[in-house]
Amino acid sequence: MKLTILGCYSATPRADAHPTAQVLQIRNHTFLLDCGEGTQRQLRKYKVSFARIKHIFITHLHGDHVYGLIGFISTMSLLNRQQELTIYGPKGIKELIEVQLRISKSRVSFPLKFQELSSKKPQLLFEDDKVSVETIPLQHRVYTNGYLFKEKPKNRTLLIDEVEKHNIDVAFYNNIKAGKDVVLDNGKVIPNEKLTTPPPPPKSYAFCTDTVYKPDIVPQIKNVTTLYHEATFQEDKLDLCDFTQHSTAKQAGMIAKQANAKKLILGHYSSRYKSLQGFKTEAETVFPNVALAKDGKVFDL
Amino acid sequence: MKLTILGCYSATPRADAHPTAQVLQIRNHTFLLDCGEGTQRQLRKYKVSFARIKHIFITHLHGDHVYGLIGFISTMSLLNRQQELTIYGPKGIKELIEVQLRISKSRVSFPLKFQELSSKKPQLLFEDDKVSVETIPLQHRVYTNGYLFKEKPKNRTLLIDEVEKHNIDVAFYNNIKAGKDVVLDNGKVIPNEKLTTPPPPPKSYAFCTDTVYKPDIVPQIKNVTTLYHEATFQEDKLDLCDFTQHSTAKQAGMIAKQANAKKLILGHYSSRYKSLQGFKTEAETVFPNVALAKDGKVFDL
Repeated sequence: MKLTILGCYSATPRADAHPTAQVLQIRNHTFLLDCGEGTQRQLRKYKVSFARIKHIFITHLHGDHVYGLIGFISTMSLLNRQQELTIYGPKGIKELIEVQLRISKSRVSFPLKFQELSSKKPQLLFEDDKVSVETIPLQHRVYTNGYLFKEKPKNRTLLIDEVEKHNIDVAFYNNIKAGKDVVLDNGKVIPNEKLTTPPPPPKSYAFCTDTVYKPDIVPQIKNVTTLYHEATFQEDKLDLCDFTQHSTAKQAGMIAKQANAKKLILGHYSSRYKSLQGFKTEAETVFPNVALAKDGKVFDL
Repeated sequence: MKLTILGCYSATPRADAHPTAQVLQIRNHTFLLDCGEGTQRQLRKYKVSFARIKHIFITHLHGDHVYGLIGFISTMSLLNRQQELTIYGPKGIKELIEVQLRISKSRVSFPLKFQELSSKKPQLLFEDDKVSVETIPLQHRVYTNGYLFKEKPKNRTLLIDEVEKHNIDVAFYNNIKAGKDVVLDNGKVIPNEKLTTPPPPPKSYAFCTDTVYKPDIVPQIKNVTTLYHEATFQEDKLDLCDFTQHSTAKQAGMIAKQANAKKLILGHYSSRYKSLQGFKTEAETVFPNVALAKDGKVFDL
C-alpha cells in the first residue's frame, strides 16, 4: 500500500504548494483521491501513470478538491484513453464536469461514469476480491464524505517443504491457502496450521478531509492502519473551526487515538502557518505516531 | 509595456510547462490574457498582484486557455477582493463560471462582470485615455478571438528651457503638451515644434492564439510593435494544421512579415517537439526578429 501526496494545502494558493490530491496504490489498484487544480501536472511530475487510474474519489465540491478534474479528463481524451473511468463524488459532480465539456466542445474518448453520492450513512462503493471502498460521512460546510479503503485478507502462505513432505497434489494448494485442512489418502488429517503461516493482517487507509472534529466516525475506522485527517488549524485558532467546519491538529490526533490507528498523517494546512512543525507537535500531545503530508512525499504504508 | 509569460504550451500537460496564460502590463493596466489550469500558482510564482488584474481576456473556451479561471475567481473571493473584475470571452464563458460557482456553493466577494463575444468582426472592448483593446477575429475549431492592445499617443514632451525663455504661464503647459502653438502677449506665435519634442510612438501588442494561418488579420495588426502568434507545429506537420486549425512557426513568421511587426513572439508549442529552437529557426526564414515564449520569461517591449 503506497500513498503519494500530490497536494495537501488548503484553498489559498501558494507558489510552492498544491491543493488536495493524492494517489493510493493498493493491491494493483491506483486510486486518485480528490483532484485540486494542477493535479494533472503533479501526476506527471511524480510519474504516476494516468492510464492506471480507473477510479477517482472526490470528498466534496469545494474548488481546492475538484477544480483539477476537468483538466485531467480533457487530457486523457487528448491522449485518446479508451478505458472506463468512474468518478465518485457528491451529487452535482456530473453536472460540474458535463457543463464544462459541453461549453468547451470537448469530446470524451472513453466511457466516463459518475456515481453521485447523497447519503449521510456509510456506503460501500467498490468491492472486488482484493479491496473494498466505502464512504465515511463527514461534516463540513457542504456535503462531504471521507473514504475508507480496506484490503481483504490475503491467502495463508504455503509452507512448501511441509506440503511436499506429505506428497500433496498441487491441485489442493488453493484450498490449503484458503485455510482448509488436508485429508491424506490414508485418512490422516493434516491441520492447516501445519502447512501454512497466516497472512499479514489486511491494511486499511482512511482519508478524512474536510471536516469538523467528528468523533462519531471512530467506530467505522476503528483499528485503521493509516488515518489521513485534515488539520487546517492549530488550537490557537480553535474558534475558527466551528465557523469554517475544519479541525485542529490536536483534534486529528484525538480521532487517531480513539480509533486506535497505527499512524496519523496530517494535511490541509491553512497557509496562515509558516511552518508545519507546530501541527505535528500539537497532534503528538495526544497520539504518538504522526507524520506531515507534503507535496511529493510518498508513504510506504 | 511589459509581458510576462505564465504558460505557453499547448494542451498536453508536461511536468515542466504550463498551458497558455500571460500578463500584459501597459500604461498602469495589468491585463490577464487567457487563463489555463495553474495560472493562479504562476501568478504567485512570478509575483504578479492578483488585485491589480481588473480585466481578463479569454481567446476561446478550450480547456488549456480557460480551466484556471474558476480557481483564480475562487481564490480572489477567499482573499475577499472587493474590486470589480471584467471577463471578456466567447459566449458561454459566463455559464462556464457560474455553474461551477453554484455547484461548489462558492460566493463571489466582488462584482464579477462578463462581456460575452460572438461577433466575427473586430470589436472595441475597452478604451480609456491611455489604451484601447479590440478583438482580432481568428479561425480555430471553436469561436476564437485574438486581442489587440494599443497605447494611445502620449503627450509631447515640453522643452522646459524654451518654455521658460518665453515666460509662458504654467497654465498653458497642458495645451502645449497636447500640440498647441502659443500666442504671446505681443501677438507673436511660437510654433509648438519649438517648445516640445514628439512623444515616443505608441506601442501595440497583438495576441493571436489559437488559429490557422489567417492572413486577413494583417490589415488590422499592420505595424504592430509586438505580435504573439501561435506556432503549434513546424512545417513537417503542415498537414495537421488544417485538421487541428493551428499554425506552423513559418506561417507565424509570414503574418509578422506581412504585418510589418517589429517583433514576433512564438508560443503554444505542441509537446511533440523536444526542443524549441526549431520553431525559432523556421520563423526566421521569413522574419528576422523572432523570440520564443517560455514560462516565466518577461519581455520588456
